[in-house]
Amino acid sequence: MLKVDVSILYEFITGIFVKAGVKEEEAAIIADSLIQADQRGVHSHGIVCVTRYINLIRNGYMKPVMAYEVKRDQGAVCVWDGKRSNGQILGYHAMKKAIEKAKQYGIGAVGVKNANHFGAGAYYARLAEREGMIGMALSTGDPTMAPWGGAEKAIGNNPIAIAVPAKEEHGPLLDMAQSVVANGRIANMMKQGIQEIPEGWALDKEGMPTTKMADFYSVMPTGAYKGFGTSFMIDVLSGVLFGGGTGFRARDDADGASLMMMAWNIEAFRDFHEFTEAVDERIKELKAVRRAKNVEAILMPGEKEALSYAASAHYVEILPEIMEEVNKLAESLGMDKWNA
Amino acid sequence: MLKVDVSILYEFITGIFVKAGVKEEEAAIIADSLIQADQRGVHSHGIVCVTRYINLIRNGYMKPVMAYEVKRDQGAVCVWDGKRSNGQILGYHAMKKAIEKAKQYGIGAVGVKNANHFGAGAYYARLAEREGMIGMALSTGDPTMAPWGGAEKAIGNNPIAIAVPAKEEHGPLLDMAQSVVANGRIANMMKQGIQEIPEGWALDKEGMPTTKMADFYSVMPTGAYKGFGTSFMIDVLSGVLFGGGTGFRARDDADGASLMMMAWNIEAFRDFHEFTEAVDERIKELKAVRRAKNVEAILMPGEKEALSYAASAHYVEILPEIMEEVNKLAESLGMDKWNA
Repeated sequence: MLKVDVSILYEFITGIFVKAGVKEEEAAIIADSLIQADQRGVHSHGIVCVTRYINLIRNGYMKPVMAYEVKRDQGAVCVWDGKRSNGQILGYHAMKKAIEKAKQYGIGAVGVKNANHFGAGAYYARLAEREGMIGMALSTGDPTMAPWGGAEKAIGNNPIAIAVPAKEEHGPLLDMAQSVVANGRIANMMKQGIQEIPEGWALDKEGMPTTKMADFYSVMPTGAYKGFGTSFMIDVLSGVLFGGGTGFRARDDADGASLMMMAWNIEAFRDFHEFTEAVDERIKELKAVRRAKNVEAILMPGEKEALSYAASAHYVEILPEIMEEVNKLAESLGMDKWNA
Repeated sequence: MLKVDVSILYEFITGIFVKAGVKEEEAAIIADSLIQADQRGVHSHGIVCVTRYINLIRNGYMKPVMAYEVKRDQGAVCVWDGKRSNGQILGYHAMKKAIEKAKQYGIGAVGVKNANHFGAGAYYARLAEREGMIGMALSTGDPTMAPWGGAEKAIGNNPIAIAVPAKEEHGPLLDMAQSVVANGRIANMMKQGIQEIPEGWALDKEGMPTTKMADFYSVMPTGAYKGFGTSFMIDVLSGVLFGGGTGFRARDDADGASLMMMAWNIEAFRDFHEFTEAVDERIKELKAVRRAKNVEAILMPGEKEALSYAASAHYVEILPEIMEEVNKLAESLGMDKWNA
């Protein structure tokens, strides 16, 4: 792994998007979202996405400058047409709007159709958390999962992220897709030449469980039909509800992903400090139970990532091949290569 | 299985609760919720619960007549103190309130602390569905799951139910807890003398996976840490957010379960008919994919239960031993036994 100075990387990635026609303050949000994922150790949603996004801009699927249209604004609810602007910028502003709605109504929900890949949902959920709210970010995705009982990919492994403020503990943060393991994890194993997949991770072309890499076709949903069920409901809440793309329509080269940002204003339900104290107490209670054999510590949702984030405040680890790819991209945009 | 006339059963179960001091219209809601679960084939949440509820009334943990206090009512949000009234009645009225809020603000959320077991979440989610909304019902539960990495039960296998209106298709309905299989399913196998548990269902006292019934201690969360994560977030949204009971505090003999009812008014997001047509289309699309080997039909969330419900409109199947138990209870209340 390369140890990369965060502030230099931030400037570098911002510069790439600026070169591709993105406004500086918007490029900074994209860079922030991607680097934060790398800092949290979620490298699948880090700067590895830069090439994909720049290609989307080049191919005309992603607008470099944000433009969205408000389709509905009614009470605690908004619907936007994202007009294929960048998913990060849309997600950022939609969550800010949801927070504003939640300040007024207690909860707020903003749906954005015709968006783009938003990276890690954690980023948007944390925006609400930092305003003293519970944040939720949902997105539809291109089809990588078969409906339960099916042998054809037709639904996204749709992500949901929920962030909760705490007092002294790390704010719990769940950011998960609906499969046992990510598609990317199996793809990485494939690249490394690994032939065997652990049991319960994968299905073959007949929709049957497989442990053979050669037979890998689609990821197994968590809890079998349950993971399909949760993906289906995210399709509805983050897509069908306001006309956003689901399944093959959520692909980069079709309508793009569709987003749902939601904020819950804790103050509407309970005194904020009482709440964060109660969250701390619940965390302590759960972490204090007897540990399973060979387990060193019981971790809360997102705790591992929070520790990684804290450890990467100044320097973040990046895979050399990813840095190389981003460097090539920078060169192709007429920029200087980044040097460690 | 006994084939029981639904309208006679309805009168019988209503009568039991009336005898225990519940108002007739409230007893009817409890009966409706329980019998609907049996009609949907979810017998774990059907009239098997009657004995538990009557005992809760007898032991003073459940108030026979509903009384709740509005703690907050602000914009789209309410918080109620359920004062240990019946979970069904509180859930019913809280969802009705959430629907009212959603009519006004687009979404509505009502939290109820100091409640009681609410049976199947599907019942409340469907109340919203029948009003042309998406309904969500969450609840905390007594600890039956260990936090991931732990070997001590400290968190509920917390349920979430989501119901979505469709046009001609069955309205999709996800009603799930966070473990691979229900605690009750393994308990039933134990009663039947089954010694082996399928792999991936159970953990032993050391928090290690086990397939031996003799070593069974706690249920395995779906997707390992993911199922713990979703249970944790339901603890927050349905409990900590407004001071409701979680973990051991959610037990029947402590503060009781804590509920969150939420309604999403589709009309605030999109034309309702466009929406239900799009839901139908999405369902057809997913059901039409190539099927896995040996699979006869691809089922949507809740489809099996909807078919069971339709088939049980007039007669519902009840286990003879459950009917016997309810009969004994009726006798103990000075009622005539029910006769098939």
